[in-house]
Amino acid sequence: MSNQGMNSDFYEYCVELIESRGIAIREIAEISFDLQKVYLKGITIDDAENAVRAVLRKREAQFAIMTGLELDRLSEEGLLQGPIADIIKHDFSLYGVDEIMALSVVNVFGSIGLTNFGYLDKSKNGAIREIDEKSRNAEQVNTFFDDLICAVAAAAASKMAHQFT
Amino acid sequence: MSNQGMNSDFYEYCVELIESRGIAIREIAEISFDLQKVYLKGITIDDAENAVRAVLRKREAQFAIMTGLELDRLSEEGLLQGPIADIIKHDFSLYGVDEIMALSVVNVFGSIGLTNFGYLDKSKNGAIREIDEKSRNAEQVNTFFDDLICAVAAAAASKMAHQFT
Amino acid sequence: MSNQGMNSDFYEYCVELIESRGIAIREIAEISFDLQKVYLKGITIDDAENAVRAVLRKREAQFAIMTGLELDRLSEEGLLQGPIADIIKHDFSLYGVDEIMALSVVNVFGSIGLTNFGYLDKSKNGAIREIDEKSRNAEQVNTFFDDLICAVAAAAASKMAHQFT
Amino acid sequence: MSNQGMNSDFYEYCVELIESRGIAIREIAEISFDLQKVYLKGITIDDAENAVRAVLRKREAQFAIMTGLELDRLSEEGLLQGPIADIIKHDFSLYGVDEIMALSVVNVFGSIGLTNFGYLDKSKNGAIREIDEKSRNAEQVNTFFDDLICAVAAAAASKMAHQFT
Repeated sequence: MSNQGMNSDFYEYCVELIESRGIAIREIAEISFDLQKVYLKGITIDDAENAVRAVLRKREAQFAIMTGLELDRLSEEGLLQGPIADIIKHDFSLYGVDEIMALSVVNVFGSIGLTNFGYLDKSKNGAIREIDEKSRNAEQVNTFFDDLICAVAAAAASKMAHQFT
Repeated sequence: MSNQGMNSDFYEYCVELIESRGIAIREIAEISFDLQKVYLKGITIDDAENAVRAVLRKREAQFAIMTGLELDRLSEEGLLQGPIADIIKHDFSLYGVDEIMALSVVNVFGSIGLTNFGYLDKSKNGAIREIDEKSRNAEQVNTFFDDLICAVAAAAASKMAHQFT
Repeated sequence: MSNQGMNSDFYEYCVELIESRGIAIREIAEISFDLQKVYLKGITIDDAENAVRAVLRKREAQFAIMTGLELDRLSEEGLLQGPIADIIKHDFSLYGVDEIMALSVVNVFGSIGLTNFGYLDKSKNGAIREIDEKSRNAEQVNTFFDDLICAVAAAAASKMAHQFT
Repeated sequence: MSNQGMNSDFYEYCVELIESRGIAIREIAEISFDLQKVYLKGITIDDAENAVRAVLRKREAQFAIMTGLELDRLSEEGLLQGPIADIIKHDFSLYGVDEIMALSVVNVFGSIGLTNFGYLDKSKNGAIREIDEKSRNAEQVNTFFDDLICAVAAAAASKMAHQFT
């Protein structure tokens, strides 16, 4: 399997994974756009969507997303064993592996994304709030998903900052 | 110089460095307290101050603080050379070394501090706002200082979460 | 469940997880001892074992170990789905989530552990070699296990450096 | 100043900074080539040099290099104040800010560079050994320089792995 082919497969797969959990790529783009519209005059939602897709084309992001969302699925299906089963299912407040995995997504366009990531993760607005509400209704385990979506949005904001500054 | 002695010297030195820039340890404690009072019922500002001081006793935090604040001082005194002089003086928006150095402080009590760090760095309330205003008045270069204070407050919040959960 | 109680449970569980995969805590201690005996005159294997156990008592390390080893187990039992199943099973050379998770263990005693971690992960000597050989014989999936053991040994070496310098 | 123009200026500046300290870009390429020639059949030293230059074109790498090498210069010229002056001058063994700054360079092409970085930093062969020997002869302070060169070589190795796998 060629390198190019492999990357592109993972991209489509990650887009589907995210959308199958009820969040559209366009919704992530709206979060990134809201973060940057004050600083980067003239950017459009389409710019933001391109940036989100650029993040999802990065292998580092793909691996983190595929691993984290697999852990969420395994938790939903009751396949995790030992203490980690409860920790992930209930997103135990001291568990930080989700943040670490998200950090590797944030970093794909540089460390300036850290601030936006933390802000999104705490303020939980837009699509992130929806994810959180679904979790509370126990429809889904989103321990990794919510952090990863924040990370993709934050990395896309960094990408635009680098592109349009 | 013994290990114990060395550590304790750095602690006093870091406290003085921070206070000489116009921020009291108690003010950082207030930021940490505000972050956690909703989640950790019964904690006090004194708990928060103890947590801030515990962060400042960690060598990893001390090294980051001493290095970052030295760069701010050198910038104020016009001793930096090359393009980095302007980048640090004006806290260029794409410069991320300040975030990276802050991250090593955030991490001293675990990765759960990432979210609080980003939130503080973006929302700039309390003592952080004061730092920011002083910078804008060109009294000080605070490129590293503001991120490091956010990091100390966020790490102290993590410390309390680990201690009182 | 009290905080103290919880931590101590995770410690025992992590020790068992590691030993059930065929590596004794003492073997990890030997790796740490070999890394530091030249620099820290007078240290003993017992010092190293204490340092390894101190790493395993850190929650940040426990969470990374429990998560990573669960992914190895799920891979062995064929429970992973999608492209990530093959990536983890064959420890695909470009997959870096194992390194990221290991990094959060390395960091529990400061960033000076990075160098020892990388060195161990590449040179694969002592117990690490055994892990690697078992993997190649397809007895186990050790995609996360080998990196995590290197990380524990490297963090224990950092702990000794901080303690005895 | 346009974004493109700015980036390109920093690239030339970083190349000069490195070469003015006595290490040629080609020498860094040789280190990266040696790391990967066993795994990536058919790569050439020219591929490695292209990869090294690609690392040096990344803003995240440029900022870390400019900041770290400025700290080395300030130390050489006796302009650092407080305890950090001695810590940086003598590359105190517990000081980890140099590793942290290097890490942000390693990460520009993904976390798989961590292992090569640590290995190079510990084994100190090729150009890295030269840097180290110059330091011991007290001709230069290379506290940040040696880690940054290891990081550039490791990131270039990752770049080739992503490109040719």
